[in-house]
Amino acid sequence: MPYIEKTMKSERIYDGKILNLRVDTVELPDKKYSKREIVEHPGAVAIIAVNEKNELIIIRQYRKAIDRVLLEIPAGKLELNEEPIESAKRELKEETGYIADKIEYVMEFYTSPGFSNEKIYLFLAQGLTPGEQELEIGEYIDVEKYSLEELMKMIKLGEIVDSKTIVGINYYYNLINK
Amino acid sequence: MPYIEKTMKSERIYDGKILNLRVDTVELPDKKYSKREIVEHPGAVAIIAVNEKNELIIIRQYRKAIDRVLLEIPAGKLELNEEPIESAKRELKEETGYIADKIEYVMEFYTSPGFSNEKIYLFLAQGLTPGEQELEIGEYIDVEKYSLEELMKMIKLGEIVDSKTIVGINYYYNLINK
Repeated sequence: MPYIEKTMKSERIYDGKILNLRVDTVELPDKKYSKREIVEHPGAVAIIAVNEKNELIIIRQYRKAIDRVLLEIPAGKLELNEEPIESAKRELKEETGYIADKIEYVMEFYTSPGFSNEKIYLFLAQGLTPGEQELEIGEYIDVEKYSLEELMKMIKLGEIVDSKTIVGINYYYNLINK
Repeated sequence: MPYIEKTMKSERIYDGKILNLRVDTVELPDKKYSKREIVEHPGAVAIIAVNEKNELIIIRQYRKAIDRVLLEIPAGKLELNEEPIESAKRELKEETGYIADKIEYVMEFYTSPGFSNEKIYLFLAQGLTPGEQELEIGEYIDVEKYSLEELMKMIKLGEIVDSKTIVGINYYYNLINK
């Protein structure tokens, strides 16, 4: 079994709006020490939202961290004490305007376990009713729709390069092709 | 089209061993300002390594950021000026001992574009020759093998919860089932 690292010291570097950074000193089996740089994140939800034509709702959004516009499934951070399913309904409405008749838990996964505790809860939303977006200050999001076949091709062509979006599209592709 | 944010100020918070943290002040269209907390990461590679029985090589490793042991495909950070394909060969050998006859680029994706520039280059490695692991100080990794059917089931059961690993397994599943 892999060695479980014991924390000897934990130094808080930064407490921010969407993330915190700490550096832990851990003890290794040979009594040596090592540093672990850890980004604390509240967790997030992502939503595979499917309309009556079996198209997925995809958002187009600028991402400052990579200075690039990405195509992604709707997603957003968990608020304090918020249940993931409530967060999924809220983010879907805010980012796309859609309200789902039916929303169900699919799976959860870590995005970057080498340096962050960010966990994404993935949901499947169906029975969509369109409405107005409710964007936060500083959010500018275009809402688009693509068929599953288009999306699988866009992954292959490198037009979709966001990991949670690739996981979500593959999940739905395997679900309806099984 | 989404609004491209202009950087008005950039404050360096932390320069570390595997990541840096900076906080950018960006201008929004209405001349308001907002902060963007950004984790700079050198990028990484991940490897779908397949043996002659069509099993995937999976590593079991403790991850301090989530205080949990995870099953993942072999992966690791890019070193300075290192080509991704060289990094993939190096990491595969170091973490699992295997040397691949054939290693090819599959795709690249961002793990957490909301707050980090981490990009993963995914490779497919075949024609594996076993050898000795070359672990770094502080690395403790078990090497295991699973069939594709087992892995697809483990994703469903929540036994595999790492996003790059889910992307890699789905890629290979779709490749051989098309």
